[in-house]
Amino acid sequence: MTPDGTGGPDGTGGSSDSSGNLDRFYDRLTSLAYGGDYNPEQWGPDVHAEDVELMRAAGVNLVTLGIFGWATTEPTPGAYDFTWLDAHLDRLAAAGVAACLATMTASPPPWLARLHPETLPVLADGTRLHPGSRQHWCPSSPVFRSHAVRLTERLATRYADHPALALWHIGNEYGCHISRHCHCEVSTAAFRTWLRERYQTLDALNDAWSTTFWSQRYSTWEEIHTPRAAPSFRNPAQQADFLRFSSDELLACYLAEKAVLARVTPHTPVTTNFVPVAKTLDLFRWAPHLDVVSYDSYPDPHDPDAAQRTAFSYDVMRGLKAGPWLLLEQAPSAVNWRAHNGRKPPGRMRLDSWQAVAHGADAVLFFQWRQSRGGAEKFHSAMVPHAGPETRTFREVTELGAELAAHADLLRSRPERADAALLLDWPNWWALETDAHPSEVDYLEGALAHHKALYDASVACDVVPVDGDLAAYRLLLVPHLYSLSLDTAARLTDYVRGGGTLVVSYFSGITDEHDRVHLGGYPGPLREVLGLTVEEFDPRPDGAWAEEIRLEGAEQVLAYDEGGPAVTRHEYGRGTAWYLGLRPDPKTMRELLDRVRAEAGVSPVEAGLPEGVQVRTRVTAAGERVRLRLDHRDGSVTAERDQASRQ
Amino acid sequence: MTPDGTGGPDGTGGSSDSSGNLDRFYDRLTSLAYGGDYNPEQWGPDVHAEDVELMRAAGVNLVTLGIFGWATTEPTPGAYDFTWLDAHLDRLAAAGVAACLATMTASPPPWLARLHPETLPVLADGTRLHPGSRQHWCPSSPVFRSHAVRLTERLATRYADHPALALWHIGNEYGCHISRHCHCEVSTAAFRTWLRERYQTLDALNDAWSTTFWSQRYSTWEEIHTPRAAPSFRNPAQQADFLRFSSDELLACYLAEKAVLARVTPHTPVTTNFVPVAKTLDLFRWAPHLDVVSYDSYPDPHDPDAAQRTAFSYDVMRGLKAGPWLLLEQAPSAVNWRAHNGRKPPGRMRLDSWQAVAHGADAVLFFQWRQSRGGAEKFHSAMVPHAGPETRTFREVTELGAELAAHADLLRSRPERADAALLLDWPNWWALETDAHPSEVDYLEGALAHHKALYDASVACDVVPVDGDLAAYRLLLVPHLYSLSLDTAARLTDYVRGGGTLVVSYFSGITDEHDRVHLGGYPGPLREVLGLTVEEFDPRPDGAWAEEIRLEGAEQVLAYDEGGPAVTRHEYGRGTAWYLGLRPDPKTMRELLDRVRAEAGVSPVEAGLPEGVQVRTRVTAAGERVRLRLDHRDGSVTAERDQASRQ
Amino acid sequence: MTPDGTGGPDGTGGSSDSSGNLDRFYDRLTSLAYGGDYNPEQWGPDVHAEDVELMRAAGVNLVTLGIFGWATTEPTPGAYDFTWLDAHLDRLAAAGVAACLATMTASPPPWLARLHPETLPVLADGTRLHPGSRQHWCPSSPVFRSHAVRLTERLATRYADHPALALWHIGNEYGCHISRHCHCEVSTAAFRTWLRERYQTLDALNDAWSTTFWSQRYSTWEEIHTPRAAPSFRNPAQQADFLRFSSDELLACYLAEKAVLARVTPHTPVTTNFVPVAKTLDLFRWAPHLDVVSYDSYPDPHDPDAAQRTAFSYDVMRGLKAGPWLLLEQAPSAVNWRAHNGRKPPGRMRLDSWQAVAHGADAVLFFQWRQSRGGAEKFHSAMVPHAGPETRTFREVTELGAELAAHADLLRSRPERADAALLLDWPNWWALETDAHPSEVDYLEGALAHHKALYDASVACDVVPVDGDLAAYRLLLVPHLYSLSLDTAARLTDYVRGGGTLVVSYFSGITDEHDRVHLGGYPGPLREVLGLTVEEFDPRPDGAWAEEIRLEGAEQVLAYDEGGPAVTRHEYGRGTAWYLGLRPDPKTMRELLDRVRAEAGVSPVEAGLPEGVQVRTRVTAAGERVRLRLDHRDGSVTAERDQASRQ
Repeated sequence: MTPDGTGGPDGTGGSSDSSGNLDRFYDRLTSLAYGGDYNPEQWGPDVHAEDVELMRAAGVNLVTLGIFGWATTEPTPGAYDFTWLDAHLDRLAAAGVAACLATMTASPPPWLARLHPETLPVLADGTRLHPGSRQHWCPSSPVFRSHAVRLTERLATRYADHPALALWHIGNEYGCHISRHCHCEVSTAAFRTWLRERYQTLDALNDAWSTTFWSQRYSTWEEIHTPRAAPSFRNPAQQADFLRFSSDELLACYLAEKAVLARVTPHTPVTTNFVPVAKTLDLFRWAPHLDVVSYDSYPDPHDPDAAQRTAFSYDVMRGLKAGPWLLLEQAPSAVNWRAHNGRKPPGRMRLDSWQAVAHGADAVLFFQWRQSRGGAEKFHSAMVPHAGPETRTFREVTELGAELAAHADLLRSRPERADAALLLDWPNWWALETDAHPSEVDYLEGALAHHKALYDASVACDVVPVDGDLAAYRLLLVPHLYSLSLDTAARLTDYVRGGGTLVVSYFSGITDEHDRVHLGGYPGPLREVLGLTVEEFDPRPDGAWAEEIRLEGAEQVLAYDEGGPAVTRHEYGRGTAWYLGLRPDPKTMRELLDRVRAEAGVSPVEAGLPEGVQVRTRVTAAGERVRLRLDHRDGSVTAERDQASRQ
Repeated sequence: MTPDGTGGPDGTGGSSDSSGNLDRFYDRLTSLAYGGDYNPEQWGPDVHAEDVELMRAAGVNLVTLGIFGWATTEPTPGAYDFTWLDAHLDRLAAAGVAACLATMTASPPPWLARLHPETLPVLADGTRLHPGSRQHWCPSSPVFRSHAVRLTERLATRYADHPALALWHIGNEYGCHISRHCHCEVSTAAFRTWLRERYQTLDALNDAWSTTFWSQRYSTWEEIHTPRAAPSFRNPAQQADFLRFSSDELLACYLAEKAVLARVTPHTPVTTNFVPVAKTLDLFRWAPHLDVVSYDSYPDPHDPDAAQRTAFSYDVMRGLKAGPWLLLEQAPSAVNWRAHNGRKPPGRMRLDSWQAVAHGADAVLFFQWRQSRGGAEKFHSAMVPHAGPETRTFREVTELGAELAAHADLLRSRPERADAALLLDWPNWWALETDAHPSEVDYLEGALAHHKALYDASVACDVVPVDGDLAAYRLLLVPHLYSLSLDTAARLTDYVRGGGTLVVSYFSGITDEHDRVHLGGYPGPLREVLGLTVEEFDPRPDGAWAEEIRLEGAEQVLAYDEGGPAVTRHEYGRGTAWYLGLRPDPKTMRELLDRVRAEAGVSPVEAGLPEGVQVRTRVTAAGERVRLRLDHRDGSVTAERDQASRQ
Repeated sequence: MTPDGTGGPDGTGGSSDSSGNLDRFYDRLTSLAYGGDYNPEQWGPDVHAEDVELMRAAGVNLVTLGIFGWATTEPTPGAYDFTWLDAHLDRLAAAGVAACLATMTASPPPWLARLHPETLPVLADGTRLHPGSRQHWCPSSPVFRSHAVRLTERLATRYADHPALALWHIGNEYGCHISRHCHCEVSTAAFRTWLRERYQTLDALNDAWSTTFWSQRYSTWEEIHTPRAAPSFRNPAQQADFLRFSSDELLACYLAEKAVLARVTPHTPVTTNFVPVAKTLDLFRWAPHLDVVSYDSYPDPHDPDAAQRTAFSYDVMRGLKAGPWLLLEQAPSAVNWRAHNGRKPPGRMRLDSWQAVAHGADAVLFFQWRQSRGGAEKFHSAMVPHAGPETRTFREVTELGAELAAHADLLRSRPERADAALLLDWPNWWALETDAHPSEVDYLEGALAHHKALYDASVACDVVPVDGDLAAYRLLLVPHLYSLSLDTAARLTDYVRGGGTLVVSYFSGITDEHDRVHLGGYPGPLREVLGLTVEEFDPRPDGAWAEEIRLEGAEQVLAYDEGGPAVTRHEYGRGTAWYLGLRPDPKTMRELLDRVRAEAGVSPVEAGLPEGVQVRTRVTAAGERVRLRLDHRDGSVTAERDQASRQ
């Protein structure tokens, strides 16, 4: 179901879906992983001693170590000090706590910028970013990469056989900050190299980028820049390729470290933690290179839609490798980086955690174990707060640890596949959200609006890539697939012809993979399966989408207030294709998808659930079906063992 | 009525109002020009063949060719390829379609920036803009200019006698993008040179810029910069001079190309297309150097005031040379560069087009002929849409072509002069909208508010410069003429003394041409004709203007809600001078100007027109008066021949 | 009550509280100082002659001369021209007007930037600011300082014994514009030097800045930067230190000039004018180095809270040296730098002026004497407006001059000490308002909200620093003292123990002087005196503060709407400590502080005053108590002599 990774940017690090060596990780555990980021270098011996006691009390069995340890480990260039890490790993091993060991390369020490200022990233307007926060490195910098690989090699060599080691954690939150987009001279040269590999010839590039328009035709590779500040709209194909390049360059950083680990410690699995569903990394392109997907989940306690948004992100993570994943970070209570950071009320952390498990998580970890005394994240909550263990937060942490341990057979259980899926595609995201479009279309909000109509009905939903196994699903939701290759169009058409139910939302099928319009009427290669042609777009003054739809076989289901077909249904082959020419309000969307589901034969996980109650299922190694019931009204969670599922 | 151009920045290119050689243009046409931007280099031979057929079907008789053709024509420096253009021009000539041929210099190929990065423009904060969109050139760059002139010379030489050639199109939309304001080293040196010519001595500059304040006195020319980023408000006279300089530098680019054309193809007229009434170019300073004024009109279909705003811009264009002009670009339907780009509903394109003709246009052209498949403007509508000729848009295009052709004698007809005029002045615009004023006053909005009160009453309105023929008008509206020379003040006073009716709005007559206050009470040299003194300004918390007016002969017509004269009337000589110390709401403004008009003897074009119906007139070469009636309620347009006018 | 200044950044200029030589200033006056900024270099001889007449008519006895005189005095580097200044000073002396003579260093001539572009300041993103406004100099630049000192030396030497000289005015509005924060190479090096002096060792700095977090540990001083643009939140301790450094660097500029004046004209006092209570300068650190504090007051006439805000700022100024101060600038009517600049209505200028005297001002001066004809501040009102002396403004100026002169014994009178004080601390301001906090807390708004509850009750309030004489007050208000040293915590605890009434607002006592959290529960070292622990913060979605308070001795006075203690009261030792876990609405705040005051025995200045009437008192040299009654309802002001106070 995941794309093969042979298209990886540099061929290093391998691309095999090597989940086989996950055994080393699972063998270290007796129940779901539980713990958090552990940064003992911020504390002294007294605290270290207390840490082990409190971890035992809380049921911690896995901690992430060393995320920000580079400066401590290599305080001056090439001079390594592992004594601190030796001590902590030994102490953890002795306490029976496994380690997810970081390669420490997320935040280089200030000396790197001093010796090599060219490793600092540059914004589109030429501003060079400086040390003093984190991620202050150019993803294309060979200097940064060589320093990162050198450190990784030292770590791998030293700890390959350490009894605490369960999992490698490469980098940290790749692409989280603005440094994901670097416009320095090194990045510019790397972009040219990447484009050369992609297009082979300048003619091919000029053709793909439609450079005849606005007289942008390139006569040498050296004329090409990253999309820097310009007087007007920048070439959209150039913009989309730059985002693709940026994702690939970060992946190359990851793969460079992975190659070392694969060589030195081949039996220890590797991961890296993805940030809340972000536009920056093409996760379907990354996933094959991870042994297990990891995720950092940070819902806003003030957001009334947080539960569904979180469910969606969990579904994305489960979809990346079509299987279990690790919740590697979440906040026990408040975060510190929003404008107004409310705490998680009592029970909320437990509910969020069980929701992750219900959606396929095999780990429940936090950032971080102990709340920092200083620095930029000192007001980010932690398992052990500033006020110490005699706190509501630590009590809840302890209770959850015990509760998870009581469901030991959830370890190695598998999430059940859903009957409905939502198609997600990063290159489409990048092309869809460039400027100079009829109106802004927010891809993530679009995906969430579709997902919500299933979620509210307690219908399970998988997330699949354009080359996923579509036939496995009765219902496929395709929000705003603006950028659509002929191949994918054919797969969607075949899907319906073969009996599938397809729901396509507006501004889909507009351009090919180089942002060139499919001519002859929108939505180009989907016109046949949808049974209609869109002649022109007509967004309303408030930005609401509208368009002129000509029916060519489809029937009108809903009309615009101003008249004309807005939602249509087309029976095609053995299946049905729906088209949404607008974004219905949530109530209408729900009613619409209820009808679609009824016709497609897609049922809720459990019938008759009240509003606000969700059920998701996992199947244990013993074949038992565990129904995890999450009541978002009162925060209660129950796990029911389902005998029927053994059949 | 237009200013003489002897003040042109460099003396090249001549300044004569050379509308004489427009014959070459008109001789090519048998009815009003109709067509659009034609960019065949984006398409292949099949499309080219279809183009000619469809042009014939649509009644196209003029196309603009080559706007973005530089990179195609000169793919590498100095290596020219005209074969593509030869073919297209020949094909057009064979099809009876005339060509408005671009000099292609709007968007240089990427190689220019590679060879000469110093041609790239720089923002006030030092950011250098890059290729990847368009207009990425420093207006003061001698390198850019020499490359542009070289290309122009080649084009002129090659096509001087081509049968398709009807009009030269120099550059494109000068000053549309931010590159109009360049702060690079080259521009800085050019600014010094420009200032030296303007002020001759440093003392004169120091005096004009009031540099004693804030200790800004310059001791050498080399100390002077463009108004770059600074810790606080920048010198207002420096800011205004920089805008004047920027307009002049772009004009110098235009004139450099014009000089070539005037030499090589002296009998072919030249134009360039102005963008919707913009602050960047002093159009009254540019107009003498164009054989005919051209305009790109882009009303927002979502804007309920679009018809009046468009009428105003058409009136400005007609005013620039007090005669006909060309609508060189408009959208058949939606554009792509606003946040939400609604389509033009059925009939709207026709209405907009006829409105242009009614206000003096001799051409109705579109951007562009065929909708681009790729690039930044692919969602900008075109005469031939993505969906092809079987579309509402192309049908309306075809119908309009036939309709225009049916009114052949509108070609060479002249727009009638109005009895009312509105005074517009770019240097005032620049001075009025600098910072550190009592409150923000938006010049364009002010002008529109005055124009609307006439427009809604179906009263024709000309637009005149400060040195226009004021005596030709019974009523003169002067919104916010903040920057006022003593000479202009004397002309306005004379105008009233001689019997004219003058309406002056607040914040007029405040400073001289160097932004130095006329002392002794506002509005300085207008106090006598207005019969009042303003002692101080007192804008309200919401920004609404208010001030303390002392009557000195004038009578109070309206008072502020808080008391005190707000609108006054003063009989002076044989005329009357009105003063508006606030911006009335539209209804009050209408009532006020209805009274003013009644007293001044200014009538609607036609009496008894219902709200929403406009009539404007043109007089044919045969002396027939054509009354073009535009009904904005239902979109209908009628042309009535008026026998009476033949008398 | 003021901190000693031995911590001055460079030891030059002395730090003695040298108010002794103020005699030279007071001896020149026979009543409160009255006048304004006088910039005669902008005008010619006719105007100069009129100036003296009008000053006499207006009762002017002090003018500030030469603020922007550098370019006039040193038109080219090292070539001085004092003739203009000689003439003006002589004319003033002859007219009996004293001079507050500027060192002219606020705005260097353009030649300085030409010769030394490295003196121009640089923003965090690398943008270099340019001349064309003012304050375009890097505070750490040795080149700027040497030029400033050279000019100061020339001025001091020439005018030391001039009969007009009453006071030196060093620089102007230090830290008003963005140049206060410079990130250039020179500033970067200076920052390192400053840090070296502060921390001595890199280990100490790394510890203070908590650099272990995010791997920021520095291995050499050369790795440290000012907090330039970075990918994410910058180190908060680094940010706070940079603000401290910036204040100190500006102070060093001031002290460099003061050292010259102290040497050359030891008997003439010095001052500089502070801008409306701003975050940029630690005024308690500056005050010891001024002979008298000066202030520029610019309330917004559109602001309904202006009177109280102004009173607060006046209280701050009086608090800086616990005594009289000079109102060195205010506007007679409108300013020009807000978005909408309303005039001061009739009587308002008089009211503002007397309010200053009531709060301790010994001078009432304006910016400026005569309204400029050109430049960036020409729409800033002046004593003599553009319309001349026959104006409301000049009439009010004249009346006020006469009125002040009629109260001659207010000169050398002292403001009475209050029973209540508010604690203000700049380093806390800097630490409190860094990013990544639970919610934004605006320190100034917080202080104003507390002050308002006293002000509205006509209760006098002093403003004190953390090391002030707390025991002198019955009531001490401590808004948001986020950054709290153990020493200050002990002083606050002692204050209550000794009988004081303390009011502490939320987010106090959180971190130490290096922004490291006091562990064990908030508010760390204040838990004992407050009798409570805060376990976690919980700001509401609208940003309103809330938190989880555990009572440990305190009683609940008010609860949150959602439940839980919000305001508490704790009897401790002989005193009482209140805690506000939220910002009450103004009415609740007033009721709360009325109760607190009643318990603490703090009375209004006068009982039974109606809402909107304020009374403040000064005591003459003869021991008479002058009760200045300000009625903000009708603008009336009265001065009552109180016999009782002589007892």
